[in-house]
Amino acid sequence: MPQQKKLALASIKSMYRVFTVPEAPDSTLSQIDKNISRNLAGFLQDHIVAVEKDLSEVEKDFADPKIPDKPIFVSEQTQFLLDKVVAQSVHTASPSFVGHMTSALPYFMLPLSKIMIALNQNLVKTETSKAFTPLERQVMGMLHRLVYEQDNDFYHRWMHDAYHALGSMASGGTVANITALWAARNLAFPPEGNFKGINQQGFFKALRYYGYEGAAIVVSKRGHYSLSKTADLLGIGRENIIAIDTDDNNRIQLDQLRKKCIELQNKKIKIISIVGIAGTTETGNVDPLDELAEIAREFKAHFHVDAAWGGPTLFSRQNKHLLKGIEKADSVTLDAHKQLYVPMGAGLVLFKDPTKLNSIEHHAQYIIRKGSKDLGSTTLEGSRPGMAMLVHSGLKIIGREGYEILINQGIEKARAFANIIEQNELFELITKPELNILTYRYCPNWAQIALLQASPDEMERINTHLNRITKFIQKTQRELGKAFVSRTCLEPLRYQAVPCVVFRVVLANPLTTIEILEEILSEQAELAKHPKIASEVAAFEKLCSHHSTQTKAC
Amino acid sequence: MPQQKKLALASIKSMYRVFTVPEAPDSTLSQIDKNISRNLAGFLQDHIVAVEKDLSEVEKDFADPKIPDKPIFVSEQTQFLLDKVVAQSVHTASPSFVGHMTSALPYFMLPLSKIMIALNQNLVKTETSKAFTPLERQVMGMLHRLVYEQDNDFYHRWMHDAYHALGSMASGGTVANITALWAARNLAFPPEGNFKGINQQGFFKALRYYGYEGAAIVVSKRGHYSLSKTADLLGIGRENIIAIDTDDNNRIQLDQLRKKCIELQNKKIKIISIVGIAGTTETGNVDPLDELAEIAREFKAHFHVDAAWGGPTLFSRQNKHLLKGIEKADSVTLDAHKQLYVPMGAGLVLFKDPTKLNSIEHHAQYIIRKGSKDLGSTTLEGSRPGMAMLVHSGLKIIGREGYEILINQGIEKARAFANIIEQNELFELITKPELNILTYRYCPNWAQIALLQASPDEMERINTHLNRITKFIQKTQRELGKAFVSRTCLEPLRYQAVPCVVFRVVLANPLTTIEILEEILSEQAELAKHPKIASEVAAFEKLCSHHSTQTKAC
Repeated sequence: MPQQKKLALASIKSMYRVFTVPEAPDSTLSQIDKNISRNLAGFLQDHIVAVEKDLSEVEKDFADPKIPDKPIFVSEQTQFLLDKVVAQSVHTASPSFVGHMTSALPYFMLPLSKIMIALNQNLVKTETSKAFTPLERQVMGMLHRLVYEQDNDFYHRWMHDAYHALGSMASGGTVANITALWAARNLAFPPEGNFKGINQQGFFKALRYYGYEGAAIVVSKRGHYSLSKTADLLGIGRENIIAIDTDDNNRIQLDQLRKKCIELQNKKIKIISIVGIAGTTETGNVDPLDELAEIAREFKAHFHVDAAWGGPTLFSRQNKHLLKGIEKADSVTLDAHKQLYVPMGAGLVLFKDPTKLNSIEHHAQYIIRKGSKDLGSTTLEGSRPGMAMLVHSGLKIIGREGYEILINQGIEKARAFANIIEQNELFELITKPELNILTYRYCPNWAQIALLQASPDEMERINTHLNRITKFIQKTQRELGKAFVSRTCLEPLRYQAVPCVVFRVVLANPLTTIEILEEILSEQAELAKHPKIASEVAAFEKLCSHHSTQTKAC
Repeated sequence: MPQQKKLALASIKSMYRVFTVPEAPDSTLSQIDKNISRNLAGFLQDHIVAVEKDLSEVEKDFADPKIPDKPIFVSEQTQFLLDKVVAQSVHTASPSFVGHMTSALPYFMLPLSKIMIALNQNLVKTETSKAFTPLERQVMGMLHRLVYEQDNDFYHRWMHDAYHALGSMASGGTVANITALWAARNLAFPPEGNFKGINQQGFFKALRYYGYEGAAIVVSKRGHYSLSKTADLLGIGRENIIAIDTDDNNRIQLDQLRKKCIELQNKKIKIISIVGIAGTTETGNVDPLDELAEIAREFKAHFHVDAAWGGPTLFSRQNKHLLKGIEKADSVTLDAHKQLYVPMGAGLVLFKDPTKLNSIEHHAQYIIRKGSKDLGSTTLEGSRPGMAMLVHSGLKIIGREGYEILINQGIEKARAFANIIEQNELFELITKPELNILTYRYCPNWAQIALLQASPDEMERINTHLNRITKFIQKTQRELGKAFVSRTCLEPLRYQAVPCVVFRVVLANPLTTIEILEEILSEQAELAKHPKIASEVAAFEKLCSHHSTQTKAC
């Protein structure tokens, strides 16, 4: 055999090996595999480097745009991933990382994920998913029941119906929100007379046929940014996401909402949907859903509730009243990779009326044929993994009572931490926790009083310094790597809506303790004394001094 | 301590356990975990039941809409999953399951997926993904270079640029196509004068400002169904996906395309995009991309290429010429979970010009701030898992040469199988493989001749029988569980475009051998003799007999 042909055959053989020969039990990758199963927390602790490298440094390891010609060894790539990726990843499971909506995972999720990946099903159609299709439909039924509490007959009738779906699974809350508002838009401009529907004929003809000048979605200004993205995508336009002011509890102002709706109506702008929020991303507040439902009905708008974060509060008997009115929503978004503790990549939207999702129905010749039970006929995505298996397992293994404990503990911890902040003279609580999210900032007690006495101009100047200090503390704490809170910008009414940079804390990790939270606060207090921010603190103290002297005199 | 409080504490403790205590090494779940690592093929073989249960039977195990109050044991859920889900899932990795675009996974993908899931990063922002962000940007660079072959300076300039992206990762090809056409739509109606752009002001005002009567996307009738979905979603309308006829090789007819474009132009309909296909889903054919690029330029339309399937053909030096012209595309869709052999849930779209994706850019207060490197500012999805790590690992461990072998083998195998079918007197090759997909049907040689001699009416009647027989064979073979080919419906020109049900074979699994394909064909030949289809075969033979006698006489 000529040398060249021998070489070619050897390459082919080695290519087959990656599909047929498991990693050797003593290989680096197999060791990690075992290590993660035996001790996930330890693996993450040992391999993620706490102190943060600058991103531009990290980028140097990812600078080559060339795909290598020759294959490299699995062990070499594994070592690279350990040194350069795992080491410089974010310790989302750490109990002192309380700035994200991503927290620790239950142990059982890991081996179950491995089964899911090994099976490599595609849920777009039964032909590539079989039992995963009824499993996903059951998961939708279970969560539909959690929200809408219909009777058994209802679920018996609809859950596995080939022509309908109770909801649509997605890779996350954004796609879930898009799906909801896509359906809402299509329902707002249905087929009629010689008009074949907006889905068939598009936005231009829809508005022309129905005699509208435009279309809008109304939500509080605390609405998730995915809604603007949705408005862009759906052809509504970002400026037609009408943001209504909120009260000091970050809840939509109902009088303003109604006024705006009347205004839109008078301008011949179709209100496609009114969106309520059950757990705002930044502050965890819940809109008055009951009242929103009523206003939506009044203006014949689809009522969507974005409960991506707060939805699982329904598991808690003592807290579910916070979401009262959610059962009146035409559609509800939930994120399973948030408070259902499923790995990243699982969101969903539920529809109260199972016939409504047909407004976005689609079919093809070779799959999702009409009358098939293929889930793909009412999802935005096409090919999708079997994440429903993990949601199903969470609902069974954690159970309603387990989720109830997790929800209750989070809310209690948030209240306790809010008290601690209020008693600490260096920090100011900006938003009280309604669910398990709170915000605060660096702002000593005396400065709070000074701010209230300051002129608008002075207030803005003082505040600019405070913003810089809070931002510095947040960034530096993150870089030090022991703890992480996130940061956002709010406009509290008590300070005439001047922009305030705040720390944002999300308390969903069951392993986060009050002691850990106290340590986070102590580290922040220390960082306020950091030389790098000293001039900022001095300038701010000087600005306040006039008022603070007065205060101290009181 | 009162009994009730004791119980409550016990529940809390057991809830913590699932986050802190790994599964015991001898538990069912740990055993499966090890089993999959040691012998994936064996695990799938042992646990997936070959013979198919009726879906309505399977549904009985997923009928309860109630979330259990009390948690169940992990072992109990694991057993349930093994018996009811894994057993009744689809053996996508089986070398004799050649009907899907989902095939076997390289072994190393499983432990690597476990690392990815254990890290639970969220790639929407660097704050929750750190090194995963440059890693994903590198992956986009590598694949951009595969398609567009720019020089090192180009990638040095753009790959990690905070204000631009070379492309957008997605959960799959559908979202990738949507993203491409969303950008194309926004680029077609940019801000100008007092018009703020379609992204801001929506479709209605865009068309009014630019003086158009409508908007359209043009593609061959072999275009993926996700394009109609996209047209609905984007407000273009499904009827404005203009489907152009194809030639007998399933490639778009260029004269018809140009004619249609002129017609649209005359009707004042803006052509948003001309879409070329590099690997049609049903037949694996490639449009004449060079010519499409020219026509797109002529009509000032965005040129998008859907290479979800065929893109990786570019790895093959001897076959990449089949995709000639792809480098002229403004955007290209690729699916990593298809021919890059990554687990389900990874697609992406690349943009030739890195400034173009800014047409769908979005920002928020607390993440994806302007100037940050957060990937989320140009993705349709929000929270997303770190699938890029698996694509990266595939590109390194398999390498260009490895993928080249996989691509070449697939194409060679398809050609070999096509020859076998052509030599088999019971079957008719319907579409010759250009890449690694082919279609054929049950239609004996003498019947093929009879069909060509039949009147249009006779042809349709004969064909109806043939369709039923092919459909029966496909379904029954699937139910028997040894092998699987999929099924679609084509309109071959040689039969005056009468709808023909065909078997569809996708040859991407490197473990599929010619012997396996021969067995599949033998089983199909046997099934044609099945009593359940006997009357159909008899009726068809009778209809043909007149012509076949003539034929035999020749």
